[in-house]
Amino acid sequence: MLLCDIGNTSFHFYDGSRDWRHDVATFDPASLTQEIAYICVNSEVSLKLAKLANWIDLALHVKRDSYYETMGIDRIMACEFIDNGVIIDAGSAITVDYMKAGCYEGGFIYPGINAMQYAFASISPRLKYPFNFDVDLGKMPKNSQDAISYGFLAPLQSLLSGFDAPLILTGGDAPLLKPLFEDAQLEPLLLFCGMAKIIDKGRLC
Amino acid sequence: MLLCDIGNTSFHFYDGSRDWRHDVATFDPASLTQEIAYICVNSEVSLKLAKLANWIDLALHVKRDSYYETMGIDRIMACEFIDNGVIIDAGSAITVDYMKAGCYEGGFIYPGINAMQYAFASISPRLKYPFNFDVDLGKMPKNSQDAISYGFLAPLQSLLSGFDAPLILTGGDAPLLKPLFEDAQLEPLLLFCGMAKIIDKGRLC
Repeated sequence: MLLCDIGNTSFHFYDGSRDWRHDVATFDPASLTQEIAYICVNSEVSLKLAKLANWIDLALHVKRDSYYETMGIDRIMACEFIDNGVIIDAGSAITVDYMKAGCYEGGFIYPGINAMQYAFASISPRLKYPFNFDVDLGKMPKNSQDAISYGFLAPLQSLLSGFDAPLILTGGDAPLLKPLFEDAQLEPLLLFCGMAKIIDKGRLC
Repeated sequence: MLLCDIGNTSFHFYDGSRDWRHDVATFDPASLTQEIAYICVNSEVSLKLAKLANWIDLALHVKRDSYYETMGIDRIMACEFIDNGVIIDAGSAITVDYMKAGCYEGGFIYPGINAMQYAFASISPRLKYPFNFDVDLGKMPKNSQDAISYGFLAPLQSLLSGFDAPLILTGGDAPLLKPLFEDAQLEPLLLFCGMAKIIDKGRLC
């Protein structure tokens, strides 16, 4: 079965061996006729998909009460695949969720790269720099670009390094954050693994 | 001598016992005739003050090469008063500077409250909440407002708690951050103390 994760900007497909994306603005979901299991955090697209019988909403097959009410279905799906670990999903937001013995222990949200750059630029045009991901977090910076790069990366690294649990990195910006967390596991398709597990549990195909 | 710290929004005065503010948009610095020692990060105001003989720019009396080129004069002035410690200045940005045996070791910049709220709101209107400063940082959150509040506060707390040096809190939002740093010292007038020290050193009055 084809899997699809729909965000604010793209349809992200996975067929079990290959993944690819289509733009939300131009892709017509009615153009596909096979069965597709999906999750969607885009409310406009959700309305369209509800009318298409071959698009199966996996959100309806998850025990949502294990999580909290306003938690995104994408975060839930990643958690469904992990029994023990801290899931760091680095996208427009960096969401961090903690699973322990198969139970959801809670999570937090940190701004993603663009949002954080936006935050610094909103304070002063003097802080409008791209982040330097090669900044040395082992010593305090002495220039403005490194000062904001360190301010973005070092607090997150410090907090997450304190968890006594495996770190699992996913999301589009995961490779950029990987050097901060030496022992972290990179799992670019984690969310699809969670979706496949839900399908398997519910014998949806 | 009257002291004045000029930012983007206000003239902040201190006369040795009392401090008060005037709005940058409406206050005319030429209306004062006594000597005033000032620092200023507002380039428009700087141009006006350069023409007034009774306004003395303390930035000209600091050894700037002890710091880095683009470092704000307000941060430098706070550092001038501290020989050993980590200075957390919580304003529109939260600047953190480390002084050791009278030497500047470097510093970093973290977004202030408004900039961070702006960052979350830019990701999704679902993250548009005021921060909950009473969030329990001892456990992982299970609702959206606490998830962003924890994401703002816990990484900073984690990083700063790792410093083996006294923490000194200053700036307008210092009282809001104080509960995160039990042993930190609140010094609302730290910057004026630094200014007074520079005046004393240079026998400017």
